[in-house]
Order: sequence, then C-alpha cells, then structure tokens
Amino acid sequence: MISFENDYSEGAHPAILRRLTETNFEQVPGYGNDPYSAHAKELIRAACGTPEADVTFIGGGTQTNLIVIASLLKNYEGVIAPSTGHIGVHEAGAIECTGHKVLSLPGYCGKLDADDMKKYLAAFYGDESHTHMVFPGMVYLSFPTEYGTLYTKKELTEISAVCREYGMKLFVDGARLGYGLMSEANDVSLSELASFADVFYIGGTKVGALIGEAVVFPKGDQPVNFITTVKQHGGLLAKGRLTGIQFEALFTDGLYFEIAKNAMEKAKRLKSILAAKGWRFFLDSPTNQQFVVIDDETLKRVREKFVVSFWEKPDPTHTVVRFATSWATTDAMLDALEAFQ
Amino acid sequence: MISFENDYSEGAHPAILRRLTETNFEQVPGYGNDPYSAHAKELIRAACGTPEADVTFIGGGTQTNLIVIASLLKNYEGVIAPSTGHIGVHEAGAIECTGHKVLSLPGYCGKLDADDMKKYLAAFYGDESHTHMVFPGMVYLSFPTEYGTLYTKKELTEISAVCREYGMKLFVDGARLGYGLMSEANDVSLSELASFADVFYIGGTKVGALIGEAVVFPKGDQPVNFITTVKQHGGLLAKGRLTGIQFEALFTDGLYFEIAKNAMEKAKRLKSILAAKGWRFFLDSPTNQQFVVIDDETLKRVREKFVVSFWEKPDPTHTVVRFATSWATTDAMLDALEAFQ
Amino acid sequence: MISFENDYSEGAHPAILRRLTETNFEQVPGYGNDPYSAHAKELIRAACGTPEADVTFIGGGTQTNLIVIASLLKNYEGVIAPSTGHIGVHEAGAIECTGHKVLSLPGYCGKLDADDMKKYLAAFYGDESHTHMVFPGMVYLSFPTEYGTLYTKKELTEISAVCREYGMKLFVDGARLGYGLMSEANDVSLSELASFADVFYIGGTKVGALIGEAVVFPKGDQPVNFITTVKQHGGLLAKGRLTGIQFEALFTDGLYFEIAKNAMEKAKRLKSILAAKGWRFFLDSPTNQQFVVIDDETLKRVREKFVVSFWEKPDPTHTVVRFATSWATTDAMLDALEAFQ
Amino acid sequence: MISFENDYSEGAHPAILRRLTETNFEQVPGYGNDPYSAHAKELIRAACGTPEADVTFIGGGTQTNLIVIASLLKNYEGVIAPSTGHIGVHEAGAIECTGHKVLSLPGYCGKLDADDMKKYLAAFYGDESHTHMVFPGMVYLSFPTEYGTLYTKKELTEISAVCREYGMKLFVDGARLGYGLMSEANDVSLSELASFADVFYIGGTKVGALIGEAVVFPKGDQPVNFITTVKQHGGLLAKGRLTGIQFEALFTDGLYFEIAKNAMEKAKRLKSILAAKGWRFFLDSPTNQQFVVIDDETLKRVREKFVVSFWEKPDPTHTVVRFATSWATTDAMLDALEAFQ
Repeated sequence: MISFENDYSEGAHPAILRRLTETNFEQVPGYGNDPYSAHAKELIRAACGTPEADVTFIGGGTQTNLIVIASLLKNYEGVIAPSTGHIGVHEAGAIECTGHKVLSLPGYCGKLDADDMKKYLAAFYGDESHTHMVFPGMVYLSFPTEYGTLYTKKELTEISAVCREYGMKLFVDGARLGYGLMSEANDVSLSELASFADVFYIGGTKVGALIGEAVVFPKGDQPVNFITTVKQHGGLLAKGRLTGIQFEALFTDGLYFEIAKNAMEKAKRLKSILAAKGWRFFLDSPTNQQFVVIDDETLKRVREKFVVSFWEKPDPTHTVVRFATSWATTDAMLDALEAFQ
Repeated sequence: MISFENDYSEGAHPAILRRLTETNFEQVPGYGNDPYSAHAKELIRAACGTPEADVTFIGGGTQTNLIVIASLLKNYEGVIAPSTGHIGVHEAGAIECTGHKVLSLPGYCGKLDADDMKKYLAAFYGDESHTHMVFPGMVYLSFPTEYGTLYTKKELTEISAVCREYGMKLFVDGARLGYGLMSEANDVSLSELASFADVFYIGGTKVGALIGEAVVFPKGDQPVNFITTVKQHGGLLAKGRLTGIQFEALFTDGLYFEIAKNAMEKAKRLKSILAAKGWRFFLDSPTNQQFVVIDDETLKRVREKFVVSFWEKPDPTHTVVRFATSWATTDAMLDALEAFQ
Repeated sequence: MISFENDYSEGAHPAILRRLTETNFEQVPGYGNDPYSAHAKELIRAACGTPEADVTFIGGGTQTNLIVIASLLKNYEGVIAPSTGHIGVHEAGAIECTGHKVLSLPGYCGKLDADDMKKYLAAFYGDESHTHMVFPGMVYLSFPTEYGTLYTKKELTEISAVCREYGMKLFVDGARLGYGLMSEANDVSLSELASFADVFYIGGTKVGALIGEAVVFPKGDQPVNFITTVKQHGGLLAKGRLTGIQFEALFTDGLYFEIAKNAMEKAKRLKSILAAKGWRFFLDSPTNQQFVVIDDETLKRVREKFVVSFWEKPDPTHTVVRFATSWATTDAMLDALEAFQ
Repeated sequence: MISFENDYSEGAHPAILRRLTETNFEQVPGYGNDPYSAHAKELIRAACGTPEADVTFIGGGTQTNLIVIASLLKNYEGVIAPSTGHIGVHEAGAIECTGHKVLSLPGYCGKLDADDMKKYLAAFYGDESHTHMVFPGMVYLSFPTEYGTLYTKKELTEISAVCREYGMKLFVDGARLGYGLMSEANDVSLSELASFADVFYIGGTKVGALIGEAVVFPKGDQPVNFITTVKQHGGLLAKGRLTGIQFEALFTDGLYFEIAKNAMEKAKRLKSILAAKGWRFFLDSPTNQQFVVIDDETLKRVREKFVVSFWEKPDPTHTVVRFATSWATTDAMLDALEAFQ
C-alpha cells in the first residue's frame, strides 16, 4: 500500500535522525534550556528576519493552538476562526476546554474574509447588549488552510489591519507553513508573514520532523511566564533537545524550505495525474493537499492500492478524498498512482 | 561538566534510535494506529500480566497526569495526593487547570499513609456539610516517589483497600517506574502493581526514551472515548509511531528492565561515594534519586564540575541537592565524582 | 417612560412579596433545605405530572444553563443548540467557560430542525475522524425561543426521538416557559414537555419572581451530587427560602399560569397595536416577545416615550426592536402605545 | 426549635422588604442599570471613603469569590489562602473549577500570618524550578474569618505590605464584614480596610439581606469588562434592582452597621451564657460565631431545642459546634438558651 493519506506517514528527514544520533550521549539541560534549542531559535529568528522574536518549541499542533490561545486571551474573550478552521473542527474542543469560545465566521475554501470580519465586528460593537457576549480577542487562521489554500499578501494585509483596528491578536497556524511558503502560487515571504502576525508557528511535524512546532512571537512580546503556561498544559518536553535538535537541523542550510519544495513539486505532478484520471477537483488547492471527488466504486478500487483520507460525502454515491504529498513523497509513489487504472 | 542533574539529560537508548532509523521510511497510519504501537501495547500487556489492559501512549508526565485525572474524575471530585506529589507541586497547576482540586494529605518522604487517608475520609463523610466540599474521587501516588522512596507491597495493599472501600480510583504515576521495580529494596512486581492500581503509567522519558509514557488501564476499563480526551488536551501525537517504536524497543527482550537496572547499580555506587564524602543524606532513598545536604561553599565547588539539582534550603548556609543516576550513567562519571575533593 | 423593554422590568408578583413578608422571621434551614422549598417542589411535581421528578432552584437562567450542561456532559462532549440559542449568543461564553463547546446548528426563527440534527449526526458518526471532534452529548432548545416562537408537539416529538436514537440528553430552557404554555398557539402541555425533555427549567425571573428558575429532572435521574455542582458554580443560595417561597406562591392555585396568561392577552393586543402602526413584523411570534422593523427616525420618537429592546440592524436606516409584555403589563401601558403617533 | 445555626436563618431586615414592596411596580432597567443600584453604589462609596471605587453587586459569597478571583488572576497564577479559608474548604472546588489553584498556608484560628507568607514567597522565588509551579498572584483572607476571628490593623498592614512587595492582589472576603467592623475587639475601620485591600466585598446575605454581596474595588481599577465576567459565571441578576434596593436600604442611615451591632451585643450575651454552661470554647472569637466543645450526650439534648452547626469531632465523644447570632437574634432566643439545663 502506498499512502497519500497525509503528510505525516513517514518518520523524519534523515538529517534529523542523524543529528539525534550524533548528539545522543551529550548531557544537556532539560525543558528547552539546551544549546541545540538555543541555536535553533537563533536560526529561526534569522529566517524570519525578526531578531527580537521569542521562539518556543511545543510538541504538536493542537497543543500549540490551545496554549497560544489560552495564554493570550482574557477570560471574557474568544477567538475568531473560519468555520473550517482546525481549532473549531478537529481538535476535540481543545480551545473550549481552556474556557474560550471559537467564534465561527464563514470559510471560503478554508479562508476568512476581511469584510466578513468587519461586518461581524461592527455588529458586535453596535449591539447594545454586547457586554453579554463573548468579546472577539483574537483571530486564528491557517496558512496554508485545512483545504490547502493560501491567503494572498493583500488578504493578509487587510485581515491584519482589521485586527489592529479592533485590538485583536492575529495568530497564524503554520502546521504546514513550509508547504505554503514554497508554493508557486504564494506571494507572502516568511518575514512578511512575521510582520502581519502577532504570533504564528512553524510546523515541524508535517514538514519532516518527528514532532514539534516552533511558536514565534515576532515582536518579542511573548506573554509573561509563557513557559509556565506551556507546562500547565503538559506541553513542556523534559527532553527539550528533541525539538531543539530537529529545528536546528531543519533550519540549517535551508533544509526546511528545500524539503517543503519537494512536496510542492510532487503536488504539481499529483495534480496532473489526478486531472488525467478525470476526477473532479473539489476545490483548487495550490499546495500539498489535493481534494478530488471520486465515485464510490472507483474509490473502493483506489483504496485497494492507496491510502487516501476521507473528507466528506457530497452525495450518497461519491466521496471527497484528500491526496497529500510531503517532504517524503517520491516519484515512484506517483508513478504507481499514474499507472493505476 | 558531568551531569547528575536528572534522569533525562541524555537522548535515548541507542536501540531506540536504531529502530527509528530502520523504520523511518515505512508509511504507517497516524495517531497511534500504526503496527508498532499495536505491537508495543501487546508487549506491555504481556509484561504486566494483564491481557485485557487498555494501553495508550502519551508524550510526557504532566500531560499524562492531567489527561488521566480529567478523564476519570466527575466534575465535583478532586484527587488525593501527598503534599509533595508531582501533580500538586511541579506541574504548574495542570490539574486545577482541568477544573479539579488536588486534595493534599501529608507526605512521609513522599509517601501517602493509608491511616491518614482513612482519617481524612471518615472526617469528610462525617462532616454534615460535605456536600459543600470537593469529593475525593481518586488517589494519586508516585512509584517511586518524587523523593526516590518506594511503597511496600503491604502499603499498596492497604492504600488500595481504602480506595476500594470509598469508591476511589487508584492512579500510580510511574514516571520512573522501571527504577522502582528494579530497586533491590522493592518487593512489588509489575503485575502486582497492575492489580493494585486502576490506572498507572510506565514512564519512558526518564527511562531511556526520547519522549513517551504508556498509560495502562489494567482491567481494560479505559474511559469511553479516552483518545478524544487525549486529543482535546493536545496529547495525541500525529506521528504516534514515535512512541510506539520506542516502547516496542523498550519492551523487547526486557530492555526496559535491563537499563533500569543499570541506574540502580550506579545509584548503589553513588550512595557509597556520597557517604564517603561525609555529606548527610536528606532521606534514605532506595532508587536512582539521592538527596544530600551540602554546605554552600562546597556546593559551589561541586557545581564547577558537576550539574546537580537544587531541592531546597534547610538553612541559610546549606542546600539539599539531588544527584540522579539513569539508564545512561557510566562508571566513568562516578569515577570523576569519586575523585572530586 | 413606559417600558416594553423586557419581561423583567418590574419587581415580583405581589403575592410573592406578601409571602416573603409573612414568613420573614421564621427560622428555616439554609441551602434549600427549608419547608417552603420542599413544598414548592411538591407543587411543581404535581403541576408537571411527574411524581418522581427531582426539582432544584437556581438563581438565574445563565447560571442554570451552565450548571445543568456541565453536570450532564462528559468531558469530550458538547451541546447542540440553534445558532440563535441563548447559550451560544448572550451568555458571554458561560458554557465554554465550563469546558464545553456549543455545537451550532441553523435556527429557523429561533428553532432547531430535527432533519438538520439527523444530517449533522449522520455526518458526524460517518466521519472517519470523528474521534478528533466534539461529540454531541446533549441538545439545548428554548421554549419559547429567543424569538418568541414555539415548537409544536410534532416538532418536539421528532427532536426528542433523534435525541434518544443518538443517546443525547434533551434540555429545554424554559426561561419564559409560562408564556409559551399559555400561548393560544401552543399545543404542548407541561406534562408533555416533561415527557419529551430529560431536563428542563421553569423560569421564574421572567414570569413574576424576583429571582429563580426551577430545574426539573422529570424522571428523577438528576446527576449524583448535583447540589455540589450547583455550589461549585456559586449557584446555591444560602437563603434558599427566597426561591422556595416564590415558587410556592407561583405554583399555588395556578398563579404561575394565570399571570402568564395576562402576558399573552396583552401580547395579543400589542400585536394589533403594532400592526395598526404599519410596522412590519420581523417574524411571526405567538408569545410575549414581538419584533418589528421600525425606521430610525420613527424609532427615535418612540424611544422618547417608550423603552424597547434593540435587536439588530437589518439595514442602515431601520432597526429591529423588541416589544415585550409580561405578567405586569397593563392596559394603561398599551393605551399609551396605541395613542402614540 | 430556636436556631443559632447560622446568620442566615431568617429572611431580610424589614426595611428591605418594605422598600422592595414600595418600589415593586416601578419599571427599571435590568442587569444593575437601575437607579437603586446606582444610588446604593454611591452610598457604599461614601461609607468606604472611596469616591473612585467601582462597586458591583453579586448574588452570593461563593459566586463572588470565584468571579473576583477568576477576573484578577493570570492563567498561571493561584491564590494564597489560609488552610481554613472558605474558598479552600466549603466552596466545592469553585476556584479550581475556574482553573486556578488555592495555595494553602497555615491558618491560625482562621488567620494568615505575614511571616508565613514571606517564608513561602522567599522559598517560591528562591526555588530554581519555580517556573514549573503555580505563581502566587493574589491573597485571600476573610474578615472576620470562618472562625469568627479578626485581623488587627497591624496584621493587615503587614499582610498588605507583603502583597505589594510581591505584586499580589489582596482580596478580603467580607461575607460577615458588618459583624467584624462592629466587634468591640475590632480596630480596623471600613475606610482603612479599603486602603489595605485591592478588592473586598461587603456581605449582605449574612447581614440582613435576602441575597447579595457588594464587590468593591476601592481604587476604581476593576478589571476591564468585569460585568462580562460576572455574566459568564451566571452571576448577573436580570432584576439587578433586587440587590440595588437591598444595599440602598442597608446603607441608608447606617442600617447595615446598626443591625450588625445587634449581632455583636447578642454575641456578647451568648458568650457569657455558653461560659456559664461550663462548655469549653474551642477558640476565642470576638464576633458573632462562637465555637464550643460539647459532650455528645449533652449535645443531643441541646439539639432537641436548638439548632446549632456541626463543626468537627475533636474526639469520639465530643463535638465542636457553632452558635451564631445575627442581625435578627433576640433576647428571647437567648433567654431560652440561658434557661436550658
């Protein structure tokens, strides 16, 4: 079976395993106070063009989302997200479990719209009983989105402006950030992203690491005692070296971007293979996640040879499925798909 | 600098890194649904003598504690713990953050006492206003404790009996379980522990893994949708293979016990070295954590060559510090300590 | 100024104040253990035709909602509500603050639709990754709704059937229950409501009491230690007599229904007065809340003499406002409105 | 049966019921925006000598405690309280339910000691791993305490100084504030209390009101959107007039202090009656709660005629019980007790 199920089916980029092995018996302090973590943070600050940034490594995406959001929101605030945002759908209520509401706005192929935000905010503050409602304290969006789509620089500029006007923090979930940045369709650089966002994270788990996301507060205004909040939610690794060494490897000599680029090249070929099969695209995604509508009989045969992700049932006889490429996708895997009849 | 700071200063046992490397490019399902995790669970069930057990891998100790406790307590219940228990002291309020009180009872060198529990429970249920109080729904204890001490089989039998009498779950934090089991002073087998506890975890992070704890519900009565609770708290690894492969390695051919035994042998030698220095033991620990009282001037010199953990200040001119051995401690490290003047 | 702002502008029905005064110096136990509370519970059980019911008095609606929901949901569950449901909009995130997500489904003039529920539930359980999502554990609806509308017996039968099929509790918010029951358009009796719902509350605050809602578990299956949950959320009145005496008065000789009927009669006249003004009804409400669209210039003049509630802005020059009648509305108030030019 | 069970056995001071009745049919805005609440706040500011103070009315003590604490603590902070403090014992875990730990220090007849606080804080900040611990963000104490005792001006000065040194808010639970202020043993004025505390509340429920506590932020620095936090926890009364009218009555012509004084005079006589019975005082209380140790046979007879509160069992054949006086205690009640053989 060849898997296009997701971008975390394999282990880690070999450079990471090599470095873990090379450094294995060095004794270093725990909880992220090791020299590898320190160096990785420096490399990330340099890559983002944000010398003042605070950088913290956390194990996974849901954990990162809940910790960042809980650390920034006041008790009476919630977080705006598109209806399809990961925090509102596939995190088992992690945000609510910290006491905060996810304020759902329409998602357009996974994306928030600045005009919707303005209307929502005008209605909220115009409502005479808004003190009985959850205050919008923050905006969450994913880059790329859960549907593989990308915000343009213009869209982020507008969204960011709305956030500033209304005193809301802008948080960018970058679980697949590398893939977004390396998409041919992308017009946003990492440093531009860092200038739009109040906080974002650079996804490792889905871009070649075993585990780990790098949370970046680009302006260096990480909440006081953020590490205590991380600990409180069980997100502080005793062996912080595990994330430090991985991000050091990923941000040495541009490895992160190089392996993300592989996923994009493979996605391009994947798209043409899927198109050649005559399968309808559910939406137009410029990144490593491709969604197609397949009739259920064909899908049954596909699933005898390939692993793909269920997405939704548009009607009783068809299914939307996701094919994902990653840093580890090979042409041999795509050859097999191409050969599939 | 040689570190006796803790038992998580090094990376992982080499067998683990080897297996991670060997399996790296195999494509497996995420979220713990991989064959390595399945096999690791089988090995753990066999080691515990509990063929019906539910086993789940979670990243770290604090996370495991908060997830297990939140999944088992009813909303009006709290968890009894000794005053020095990890959940009440060094987890930044993780349990309270899930809405539950830690009900603190005296700790004797880290240990709960069954008679104290009985008195507490009799007073609680005898109090006419106990419906205005937090109900004791669970008991938490560590084996070994945060002070390196061990409960005897007799003590666990008594504590377990009190739990059953009062309908409380017994949860054993086994962050250092291997070291406890392999202590010469220990008279409790893993399968006996499994018969006393309603739930316990087998610590990986401090016993040779990079990350990971194995939560065991020995009777197979894991709470419904436990994996959703794990996800909700950000504890579900996308690459579940990371913990599966590690625990598979640790529970193949008794590796977990073998490397724990090394820590015990080194601890024995460490004790005699510390005693020979004339340093007073803060308490008598039969496991890999040794606590000594050192005058601050000597400590300053110690810290020029060795990393040790601060524990507390018994008076203005002395400090209690912890020396820890681990699976990775070598005789060369102890030689250096022995040679220290 | 005459107020049609809401149904809680006046104090309490005089019979209530009279009883509070008559009983004032009797010494009774606190926390609801007084004889008035006991008698009031009996009267409510009789009115509902549920001799086994558990009845508990809580201060206000938001508090009741959060306590009932938190006491019934498992940690990984959320509550389905229509998009306009009070718990999702005007309770400042009270439900999320207890750790649970409000799962929003479309509201049709404030009402849930059983078919929407079925589609949602089929999609949820059909989704291969639903263990990463919030489980629907409960359904919340208001009778009458926040828009004054009523569910028919047929609709409640369908919704209740869906709840039972999927193992979800059905919770009916009856903040204005009296007004709903006494509406001419209503075809649901109190005992029928009690047979559909797993738990509901009989609103006092908006139907003649100073404070207080009566939570009814008609089958007598109130969660264990429910009173402790009430206390934990600060909802247990030390002087429980305050709610006991009020509900005793309201459920003696059908006072609750009689005063609710006054609101309905006044609402009927209100509707014809509003219609005669030529104001468009925003929706058709058969109860004491009437919503009309008024141009902003006229509204300004209205507000010089009358207090009404802002609802929303349908366009820049009009406003939807609410006129409410209550147990205390008099014909003199309506005469003044009728006379308004 | 005559009750000395507590200070909330009767209804309300007659002046309160009179005012509720007189104003009953006036239409006023909800949620505390009524003129009675506004006037009551003015009267309270004047009584406290704090013209800038923010004043908010909340229904009961537990609710007030949890709302004030949740509104002030950062997510990683807990609240210091004496081991016998109400929030740590008899509020069913209300504080933990908002995600915060109660940090328990020794209680001496119910009182915190400034030196204990200093030692605790020095140890906390001196601990190299304190970022893994709950930060002390606030201090909670009761005036009078749960044991009827009072802090002296000197003690409050010291405690307040420690709070300021360590950046902790000082919160005074004044559920029985009137009784404390009017005790002959008291040397702290209301305005002095207001200068020591960052926030405190003036208890109504136990001092003559039906319901209600007045939260005072003497410096006018109430947390932003405090009313939304109150709403979120279900503490915002729709009919805010209920608390407004009561506190207006209580703070008109010094009624609050006058009725508190009655309790103190009756407590004085109560003490001499209890002493004359030969019952040992459990501790020396200068306020309206008196604790005596009674042998269980005598207690059985006492309880045939009088209601008293169980406190604790010091040994198998004796019980500590509480006798409380209140604003409503009469000499006739004390005569009966005196006559008891």
